[in-house]
Amino acid sequence: MQAQAASRLGCQVRTLEKTADCPAASVVHDHKVGDWNDPDTLIEWAKGCDLITLENEFVEAESLAKLEESGFPVIPTSATMAAVQDKWIQKQRLKEQGLPVPVFESVSSQECIKKFGEKLGWPLVLKKRKQGYDGKGNATIRNPESIQEAWSAMGSGKYPLYVEAFCPFVKELAVMVVRSVSGDHTEYPVVETVQKDHICHVVTAPCSIDAAQQKKASALARSAIEAVQALGCFGVEMFLTREGEILINELAPRVHNSGHYTIEACPCSQFENHIRSILGWPLGDTSLVKPAAVMINLLGVGEGPPLPQGINEALQNADVHLHIYGKSDSRKGRKMGHLTLIGDHMEETTQQAISLASQLVFGNA
Amino acid sequence: MQAQAASRLGCQVRTLEKTADCPAASVVHDHKVGDWNDPDTLIEWAKGCDLITLENEFVEAESLAKLEESGFPVIPTSATMAAVQDKWIQKQRLKEQGLPVPVFESVSSQECIKKFGEKLGWPLVLKKRKQGYDGKGNATIRNPESIQEAWSAMGSGKYPLYVEAFCPFVKELAVMVVRSVSGDHTEYPVVETVQKDHICHVVTAPCSIDAAQQKKASALARSAIEAVQALGCFGVEMFLTREGEILINELAPRVHNSGHYTIEACPCSQFENHIRSILGWPLGDTSLVKPAAVMINLLGVGEGPPLPQGINEALQNADVHLHIYGKSDSRKGRKMGHLTLIGDHMEETTQQAISLASQLVFGNA
Repeated sequence: MQAQAASRLGCQVRTLEKTADCPAASVVHDHKVGDWNDPDTLIEWAKGCDLITLENEFVEAESLAKLEESGFPVIPTSATMAAVQDKWIQKQRLKEQGLPVPVFESVSSQECIKKFGEKLGWPLVLKKRKQGYDGKGNATIRNPESIQEAWSAMGSGKYPLYVEAFCPFVKELAVMVVRSVSGDHTEYPVVETVQKDHICHVVTAPCSIDAAQQKKASALARSAIEAVQALGCFGVEMFLTREGEILINELAPRVHNSGHYTIEACPCSQFENHIRSILGWPLGDTSLVKPAAVMINLLGVGEGPPLPQGINEALQNADVHLHIYGKSDSRKGRKMGHLTLIGDHMEETTQQAISLASQLVFGNA
Repeated sequence: MQAQAASRLGCQVRTLEKTADCPAASVVHDHKVGDWNDPDTLIEWAKGCDLITLENEFVEAESLAKLEESGFPVIPTSATMAAVQDKWIQKQRLKEQGLPVPVFESVSSQECIKKFGEKLGWPLVLKKRKQGYDGKGNATIRNPESIQEAWSAMGSGKYPLYVEAFCPFVKELAVMVVRSVSGDHTEYPVVETVQKDHICHVVTAPCSIDAAQQKKASALARSAIEAVQALGCFGVEMFLTREGEILINELAPRVHNSGHYTIEACPCSQFENHIRSILGWPLGDTSLVKPAAVMINLLGVGEGPPLPQGINEALQNADVHLHIYGKSDSRKGRKMGHLTLIGDHMEETTQQAISLASQLVFGNA
């Protein structure tokens, strides 16, 4: 989706991925296969590129710094990526700026976790400082007896870890913020995300919170990405607590699943605004074109082809926007596509979107 | 744009073009360079494809028939393309179905042209039966004395020609019609096209004609594509005369410049509906999301790079949708991109769009 937005603006896109048959390979000018953390591979790949940007957070900041040292502009910068990739450093940065985050602490042993729990109560969340996504790299610890299990699940100390107070939220919020190399910035509406098995399942825009809370969430999101000197489009995930407090959960240094709805629901999508922001072009309109937008991820239910069953049924609704990612095959839990529905009433639009998504089945259960 | 819509629906796209650096090459899974009229090249290229479709009308029907004989499904079919490519046959088909077309006649000499003019009056338009587009392949004959010049310009009888009464229109109309392999069909709104130097310059949707005329134009367009047993998305160009009569000018057997506005102005674009129609999937909503949509083609004013000057100025309008085609370079008169603006009032939207387009300059005059 990022590459398509760039192509529409006249850019030629070259990608680097670990596999030849990734979805991006089918829609770009030039696709290379290689290890994105090997500086030599990166530099060879980058030759001839005017600008380098990221679509995931897994290319190590050290490798990106090597690109910068070789004269290739990278946006967001390696310094920003270093601050975001290590979630403990990320949280430290946010905390240093006075931004609200759950209580957290770096831990190096089961004993540290136990002490943290005794001080703050249970449950806790044990997290890898790096490389986690979609719930991978997190383990919830409900009581002292389950420390051992979580510790093993997170590699028994093999990776740097931190522990965090479990935040009993009433809603999970997200905001996409765009910050341009020109100094401009803009924010998309505050959305609500509903996770299922730690994977973003439904996104509703706008979130049903009052205007003051929306304003607060939006301002927090903007401050959060300023705290890491972000450039480009960043996602900011937040918790809304029972008490109406908003805490920052984490940053995504890239376009984000919670912003896919913007393709149809906003005049300018997160993908186009990311490209505009890194080129220093004026940013596009981020408002909603209809009062309600709902995005639902379509996950594989099992192995099978990359096209879903039920297309003929689902597309009977002439307004549904279906995106099929063209992955090599379906697997249980794999993100195979998404759908977006925009409408005039949130409840009706959500019910319709859920019903449509249930008709589209990737793979065999 | 066609390839991007197909990719979004999970298709892998393979293209065949005469050059390696055409815009499509940068956004498809696999691009081959070759002569699309050589049956061996076509068949070799088609191996592994599930379905073949067209994005221009220049692949000869005979070559497409060879593909079909080799077992490859082609939509629209070679039979339809044979009826559309030869504009004299196209007009015959429309006339046979009782559809209104300007008076026309096949001609093989200057004498025939003179007789036609004496019978019907001047001016006339001399046209090549095949391969014309954007005014290439047409010559207006204002009086008997200019027959010689037009005859030479059209190849002095080297190509099959026909002559047509000049239609003194007050507006040029166009409708995109989608006809699915499933039997479904849908039409986009009737638009007005304004040509400049025989190239589509501005498209306004909807056209400012009354509801009865809109209905008539839409019905004529549908009948016209049925007359050639079209499948897929077809453009129908029409003339509205001073007397309120609507005549069919010609068919475009593919997505069409007069339908580019549908990307942002309709829930489902002409590109997506073309793909849906050839796959037999239900068709998407073709209504306008706002009361006014204006598309303006951006032509090169001279030689230069494929990115325009004036991007920073034009994108100050946060609502403009800019498409840059990524052609190798700018040349005078070359279609380098387009912009679309949607709004609540046609006059205001048109004025804004014209002003924005004037800021975007490809190449040096």
